[in-house]
Amino acid sequence: MLKSVHLFGCLSGFVSNLLKPNSIVGFSLTFISSKRLSASSSLSCSSSKLSCPGTTSLFLAPRTGSFKAFCGSTCSEANQEGTSSSPLSMSELPPPSSSTVVHSAEKIRNIRFCQWCGGETKHGIPDGEEKLRAICTVCGKITYQNPKMVVGCLIHHDNKVLLCRRKIEPSYGLWTLPAGYMEIGESAADGAIRETLEEANAEVEVTSPFAQLDIPLIGQTYIIFMGKLKKPHFSPGPESLECRLFPLDDIPFDSLAFSSMLVTLRLYVEDVKAGRNTFHYGTINKRPGTGASDIHAYTLDYHLRL
Amino acid sequence: MLKSVHLFGCLSGFVSNLLKPNSIVGFSLTFISSKRLSASSSLSCSSSKLSCPGTTSLFLAPRTGSFKAFCGSTCSEANQEGTSSSPLSMSELPPPSSSTVVHSAEKIRNIRFCQWCGGETKHGIPDGEEKLRAICTVCGKITYQNPKMVVGCLIHHDNKVLLCRRKIEPSYGLWTLPAGYMEIGESAADGAIRETLEEANAEVEVTSPFAQLDIPLIGQTYIIFMGKLKKPHFSPGPESLECRLFPLDDIPFDSLAFSSMLVTLRLYVEDVKAGRNTFHYGTINKRPGTGASDIHAYTLDYHLRL
Repeated sequence: MLKSVHLFGCLSGFVSNLLKPNSIVGFSLTFISSKRLSASSSLSCSSSKLSCPGTTSLFLAPRTGSFKAFCGSTCSEANQEGTSSSPLSMSELPPPSSSTVVHSAEKIRNIRFCQWCGGETKHGIPDGEEKLRAICTVCGKITYQNPKMVVGCLIHHDNKVLLCRRKIEPSYGLWTLPAGYMEIGESAADGAIRETLEEANAEVEVTSPFAQLDIPLIGQTYIIFMGKLKKPHFSPGPESLECRLFPLDDIPFDSLAFSSMLVTLRLYVEDVKAGRNTFHYGTINKRPGTGASDIHAYTLDYHLRL
Repeated sequence: MLKSVHLFGCLSGFVSNLLKPNSIVGFSLTFISSKRLSASSSLSCSSSKLSCPGTTSLFLAPRTGSFKAFCGSTCSEANQEGTSSSPLSMSELPPPSSSTVVHSAEKIRNIRFCQWCGGETKHGIPDGEEKLRAICTVCGKITYQNPKMVVGCLIHHDNKVLLCRRKIEPSYGLWTLPAGYMEIGESAADGAIRETLEEANAEVEVTSPFAQLDIPLIGQTYIIFMGKLKKPHFSPGPESLECRLFPLDDIPFDSLAFSSMLVTLRLYVEDVKAGRNTFHYGTINKRPGTGASDIHAYTLDYHLRL
């Protein structure tokens, strides 16, 4: 199950339910792949039928090409690092300067204690490294933060694809492929199989890798496998309102939960119509000047096919 | 740069340099993909020219098919979560029972404090979840741990591949592709380009995805891209003793640093000889009963090609 607040998804109603006063309530991220902005892009869209009062904004610094993200929630990691169930006292970051060079420093600075010894942390660049880290002032250990993998299945059956309608926030009521965070101790394929069982009560096997889609802004990488049902049975799991097989022409592109799912399904439909069997690598970047809730407002950069 | 202690690599000389008394000195991991052990395997080898006094052992529970890993170091995350530079007071876990079901619980239980508020953690399964987590007793936040991505480049030039000889532990003096941990804020491709610049002073572009190799036992996923030199220049970076282009027949398979590099290079050589252009997905599992230092003692399970 994917519980994270997806920056490109719908934040409506989520923040007030999910977070507490001590949550991480603002951060900015270095967008070091900004040089790719002018590179080969495809599949960008500007229209959206979704309208969500998300609090995250994204700005482009014209001189540097860097993005600055202002996020009123904990975005991708609200539920994967620091979840609780009490209301949030939110705060927004101040408006950006167009020439600001952006760092993920804010997120690192929110790590104030060592999780192993409880000592206070200091924030600096360790010897031999180049990035800001949280370093324990007592035991000296460094707390690293790295992107997380979300693993999922694109199940095709009788020329249809299996989608689940979310029973949980974020993006309650919207459609997604079965997917969720990969756990330590499992492979990506096993994680995708597990998530499909959890969300759609479907026993599946993965047949091939389909896509890796990075979303640098929120530190997530989507790993999507093609798969098939072992038995023609599925039903909504505890976090799904319903599960349904959609013919390709009826995929609810205007009611999808996340940009990553939109990209995956568009690529799949393109491949099927072209008779291709392709693996895709790409980076999903939010289009400058668009709101966080508009899952159609992205560019797929650095798109490589094999 | 890849600083982690790679479970399948050479641990010689590393532990005493890297860790402190408060380090995580023992853990076991659930091997939930153990059902794949009997699935399609390829590329397994039993011989090794490496001899390293690593302290990690791996056992197979015959009844359950589960692995139990006994590790005298922090394995994969020694340098990515909790690094320091003082000596380690090591301890080994007791010998395993053959019927033991193994969990990653030990690693979770080592998270004793909340990194956001400093409160003590309790360890339990949160509502709606299935896995043990560290939950703050003060603010209620959950500290999640997820697999990390290692990104790297397989640079081919004049029918040769670019390798770097490591100037750092683990696996000092052994050969590797340029690779390291993906950082938040970058894409996998940009991370692979960055690592190649850092380790080989080589400006490269990635041309296609080549492989995703999961190593569930240590919570790592390797993402390897094919790439080419923008200019025919390279030289050792601060963490490399030397960098060299190797003809395929001269790749130093007996002096590689990690199993992941061995698998990658074997697959590449196979593809070149077969005239294929392939993307590979697979899971690298340690062969039961073999030592941690033997990078040749693995199976490549769940191998999917596209």
